[in-house]
Amino acid sequence: MSEIRRDPVIGRWVIIAPERAARPDPNLWRQVERQPAPCVFCSGQEALDPTEISAIRTPGTVPNSPGWQVRVLPNKYPVLRIEGKLSREGVGMFDVMSGVGAHEVIVETPEHSIELADLPEAHIAGVARTYRERMRDLGGDDRFKYVLIFKNQGYLAGASISHPHSQLIATPVTPTRVKEELAGAAKYYDFKRRCVFCDIIRQETLLTRERLVFENDAFAVISPFAARVPYETWIVPKSHNCDFTSIRDADCGDLAQALKHILLRLRTLLQDPPLNYLIHTAPFRRPRPGYWATIQNDYHWHLEVIPRITRAAGFEEGSGFYINPVSPEDAAELLRKVQAEPVEDDTPALGPQNGSAEPIEDQA
Amino acid sequence: MSEIRRDPVIGRWVIIAPERAARPDPNLWRQVERQPAPCVFCSGQEALDPTEISAIRTPGTVPNSPGWQVRVLPNKYPVLRIEGKLSREGVGMFDVMSGVGAHEVIVETPEHSIELADLPEAHIAGVARTYRERMRDLGGDDRFKYVLIFKNQGYLAGASISHPHSQLIATPVTPTRVKEELAGAAKYYDFKRRCVFCDIIRQETLLTRERLVFENDAFAVISPFAARVPYETWIVPKSHNCDFTSIRDADCGDLAQALKHILLRLRTLLQDPPLNYLIHTAPFRRPRPGYWATIQNDYHWHLEVIPRITRAAGFEEGSGFYINPVSPEDAAELLRKVQAEPVEDDTPALGPQNGSAEPIEDQA
Repeated sequence: MSEIRRDPVIGRWVIIAPERAARPDPNLWRQVERQPAPCVFCSGQEALDPTEISAIRTPGTVPNSPGWQVRVLPNKYPVLRIEGKLSREGVGMFDVMSGVGAHEVIVETPEHSIELADLPEAHIAGVARTYRERMRDLGGDDRFKYVLIFKNQGYLAGASISHPHSQLIATPVTPTRVKEELAGAAKYYDFKRRCVFCDIIRQETLLTRERLVFENDAFAVISPFAARVPYETWIVPKSHNCDFTSIRDADCGDLAQALKHILLRLRTLLQDPPLNYLIHTAPFRRPRPGYWATIQNDYHWHLEVIPRITRAAGFEEGSGFYINPVSPEDAAELLRKVQAEPVEDDTPALGPQNGSAEPIEDQA
Repeated sequence: MSEIRRDPVIGRWVIIAPERAARPDPNLWRQVERQPAPCVFCSGQEALDPTEISAIRTPGTVPNSPGWQVRVLPNKYPVLRIEGKLSREGVGMFDVMSGVGAHEVIVETPEHSIELADLPEAHIAGVARTYRERMRDLGGDDRFKYVLIFKNQGYLAGASISHPHSQLIATPVTPTRVKEELAGAAKYYDFKRRCVFCDIIRQETLLTRERLVFENDAFAVISPFAARVPYETWIVPKSHNCDFTSIRDADCGDLAQALKHILLRLRTLLQDPPLNYLIHTAPFRRPRPGYWATIQNDYHWHLEVIPRITRAAGFEEGSGFYINPVSPEDAAELLRKVQAEPVEDDTPALGPQNGSAEPIEDQA
């Protein structure tokens, strides 16, 4: 018997229908070969790129040349552009805003053929610190309300370049999905005087553990109770914190460990599925007095990993319901059990010493 | 320069970014061949199917045997089941409902290798009348609040059987997407004392016509101002009406003409893309006095056609923003210009006379 479950954060209903579970079909996401090296994101190809925004580099190397380990570039084909003012106008009965924003690429490694999951934890921690630094920097621009960090891995998850990279888009409005989470979390807090994510963490690490995939000092990795798609996984900080930009360097290490863990397991279990991940954090701006104080109490940043092994269909689009054929409890159990090993790693160590937390030099 | 547009119904923001327009990539949706005939939906294979719920049949033929033109079956792998009561309970901090509902398949033709768009208009009108009859019938079940009619055509749009068919799912709650539309339409009505869809029809047929793809007496076919995906198209009745189940037989003919028109044009322009369509109409139930009277004024049923030629990605998932690389104005112009012809048709005429409006016999 299937179940309809309600996401406790934004009130979204999900049908959990394990009877429909089908084996994931690798034919769906295998039709595009990886591109050959070197590509524009490879070390040595810097002359082909726009001017770099920031990088983690070996001391003594100069911007826009080799010697980097993580590198941030403007997107050559931005969805939103950094130039111009935010303007709103009516077009007949309709409403339009100008497309001002920022769209950047975070190249995660100079190596073309490795995946993020195969990099050393210290290197992945450098990627996480880069996310933090870019978000902090863009938060200084008054026009932006939000920065969404995300990764598209695999063709059917939206990637068009196979060299490992993440992206960010800064937007002049807080995205709907984030607003829905903020509103849902605020409602829960109003009723319970507790953060809904803190309650989820307690439920999943202390009470049942059946949806817990992994944990370390700072993070719990869970299959959410109302997962939208098979093997959806959240990485949630155990300590209450609404704001990803306040993450400490040490916690970036724990985040890297958790992320590497789940990415390796998904790769082994689902045969290299296309996937997205994204970070949900509090918006920058404070539209009214007390807004920030409220968000600090009731919101809780987290990272969502979303494998793309099912297909869009008319029912989901028309209803806003999601149909998930794998129960989160089964997903968590399979993810706990699978034996996953990284591919042999020959990446150069991050920075001058292996794993050192080299500060990011921002040339923007 | 890209634009951020606001859907006037539910307030969803869409980034229109024509600079990113890429040619649709047919490789994405061509990896699964059509299945060979006969399949379980073919005429002559009725013994393999569950007991039929209703059909449009040649007089003198009996249920569960050949002689039908349109046929309704229970889904063999239902997402929701018809048996049982609706129950709600808490599981720890979470909320669960039992998965009661109905899930049916509308087989659109006994012919395996034809597409809906290639059938005569009178036959497609019979499919539309079948939608109406099933919705009316299921509306009599107190447990259901809504019936969503939808079609998945092509593997990447969620179809797993290539024989032409649509589906319906009856749900014990009004789907979120419908609630959002109801709420948005009510807000607009509160402010303007006019239906937002009626205003859209006036704007698109009388004022600009730049997003108008086709019109006949009863329907306008438009590229919506804030289209979520390339070539998204809405078929909207010109006369105000919240309720698809009240559609008259004559208007089913106009609906069939509009649907055939847009499906043929999308097929030619986009090289047989995967697509979904779905009907949004008012829910059955009236949770409070006056609810139905209000919906009758401010809501307006319509059919949405959603081609699946772009890929899901992390930004859309994380933000609720959609990125649409083709402007609705360009889409409408291309759809108006393309020369589209049906495939040679050798389908038997619908019912005893060609195009007659044979009543649907309901054996459920």
